[in-house]
Amino acid sequence: MSLKPEQTVLALSGGVGGAKLALGLTRLLPPEQLSIVINSGDDFDHLGLHISPDIDTHLYALSGRDNPQTGWGQRDETWSFMESIRELKGEDWFQLGDRDLALHVLRTQHLKQGRSLTEITQSFAEAFGIEHTLIPMSDDPVRTIVKTKVKTPVTNTKTGMAEVEDLPFQRYFVEQRCQPEVAGFCFEGIESAAASPDFVKRLNDSNLAAVVICPSNPYVSIDPILLLPAVRQALINSPAKVIAVSPIVGGVAVKGPAAKMMAELEIPASPLSIAAHYHDLLDGLVIDQLDRSQGQAIRATGLPVLVTDTMMVNLDIKQSLAEAALEFALNLNSDD
Amino acid sequence: MSLKPEQTVLALSGGVGGAKLALGLTRLLPPEQLSIVINSGDDFDHLGLHISPDIDTHLYALSGRDNPQTGWGQRDETWSFMESIRELKGEDWFQLGDRDLALHVLRTQHLKQGRSLTEITQSFAEAFGIEHTLIPMSDDPVRTIVKTKVKTPVTNTKTGMAEVEDLPFQRYFVEQRCQPEVAGFCFEGIESAAASPDFVKRLNDSNLAAVVICPSNPYVSIDPILLLPAVRQALINSPAKVIAVSPIVGGVAVKGPAAKMMAELEIPASPLSIAAHYHDLLDGLVIDQLDRSQGQAIRATGLPVLVTDTMMVNLDIKQSLAEAALEFALNLNSDD
Repeated sequence: MSLKPEQTVLALSGGVGGAKLALGLTRLLPPEQLSIVINSGDDFDHLGLHISPDIDTHLYALSGRDNPQTGWGQRDETWSFMESIRELKGEDWFQLGDRDLALHVLRTQHLKQGRSLTEITQSFAEAFGIEHTLIPMSDDPVRTIVKTKVKTPVTNTKTGMAEVEDLPFQRYFVEQRCQPEVAGFCFEGIESAAASPDFVKRLNDSNLAAVVICPSNPYVSIDPILLLPAVRQALINSPAKVIAVSPIVGGVAVKGPAAKMMAELEIPASPLSIAAHYHDLLDGLVIDQLDRSQGQAIRATGLPVLVTDTMMVNLDIKQSLAEAALEFALNLNSDD
Repeated sequence: MSLKPEQTVLALSGGVGGAKLALGLTRLLPPEQLSIVINSGDDFDHLGLHISPDIDTHLYALSGRDNPQTGWGQRDETWSFMESIRELKGEDWFQLGDRDLALHVLRTQHLKQGRSLTEITQSFAEAFGIEHTLIPMSDDPVRTIVKTKVKTPVTNTKTGMAEVEDLPFQRYFVEQRCQPEVAGFCFEGIESAAASPDFVKRLNDSNLAAVVICPSNPYVSIDPILLLPAVRQALINSPAKVIAVSPIVGGVAVKGPAAKMMAELEIPASPLSIAAHYHDLLDGLVIDQLDRSQGQAIRATGLPVLVTDTMMVNLDIKQSLAEAALEFALNLNSDD
């Protein structure tokens, strides 16, 4: 590992796919050299509770509490609360396990008491024995909205446009199982939200050597982080190398609706599109061996490419991908 | 049963002991003839949730969900949430089962949305298949405070009085297991609280034939109900016969800290003291066979007494006590 002891690395991550690489990175780097910034744009209020799905995914994955069967929630979970909610005719479209619920209840209580999402996340991480710093992208509310085309498109007679329905992310993702056709995205509150102070501090660290954009959904997991005021500019200004690991492999998303979204937005589901999406931000892109044939086309745009195994089916591959990606970033020339 | 079809009965009840007689009454009377008014003075906010212990005790007892082993909470309960709360270093002095939790979460959400405690309680009762009307004593917050003597009494040099500590009821009852010595009680908010509209309506019903004060703790379960503005006067004005079933049997409380409280307040733990406590409100008192010898002393004060088996160890006795108490009330002469 060519990282010097004083140098630091920042990972930007969303849900399950991102958390896999984040776990690999934690196996590689000590807590003082690695921090993980997590999307909070898919946070939402449900049954009066503040739920932070991406943050909890990382808390569970990095402490070994994640449920490999479901891909979400905790392992050894019980479901008595949901049974009781259904008995009482409460909203039951979002599954809340009994153990999982403790995080939502305490988070809601602590937010009401004036603690920040960052403080709360870090106290949970500490309680779970996680030594690396987890940083919610912002302590302010940002809410990802999926703009979807209505199923029976009635063209608005005034504007001549097909009508769209705004769906809060979890309604789109969980309740409607990503079925509505996507027309675009917006991030409510992002203009007035500040990147969390811990994030800003690490972003402006002169020893920041690499920023790794994890293989998370670029539209709904990474964009909310990048679109926070001043974040993109700070990344461009930073001497750190910014690389991404493509979440698209062989034309499909390894996890989640990214490829479906791209099809609906008429964007080819390919690493080349990922490169184009992150555009001037990237110093390098990591793609899977399956997409080896696209390497040349991406390199032709001036972007260095690492081709490697990105399917993180076990802990060893998580760690070896983390190591390969980091070496790739650190060996990029400043002129690239 | 000498109750006419148009006549109605109101039960006033607190926790577990009261719920037993309430259950007996529901076995005896149809929903249109019986309503149960429940103490909400021991409601409290915990982990950001609104918890209504006495209301839930009735919801569980009247729907067969009560846990006979613990005497509180639901049967077939699981405890994953509490395990997780402890892992996260959350407050764990009040046990919240996973099923139980659903009521607190939904109640908190609905209160925030502006629904009344009465509406919420009745929607839960309906979901649980309870046909009788359960009425929280008030939709306004009333909070029972137990004034306790500090353990190492430092006499205040200015007032010459021993110092007291105010404990919210659940802190006294659950966290401190009723150990502090009681000096008195107060009910925060009671002056500005209104009896719930459903309670007032039934209290002023000209067909109200009997009010049964269940064998609940007079100080912390029944007094909050009676001390609500206008309730005591309405009871005195009502043509209905008001009877109580003594919660003190053989010098001890059948359940809970009533006898310990009485000792600390230097009041003999006896049915006679219960009679004296309710004073001009009562038209009759039901006492246990164990206390038969006290019947005469109570009758000597002008109060009719029924001596019967009040230990409600099974459903049959709950129902037969309900029947005996009701007959006793209905057969009292208006001159008594």
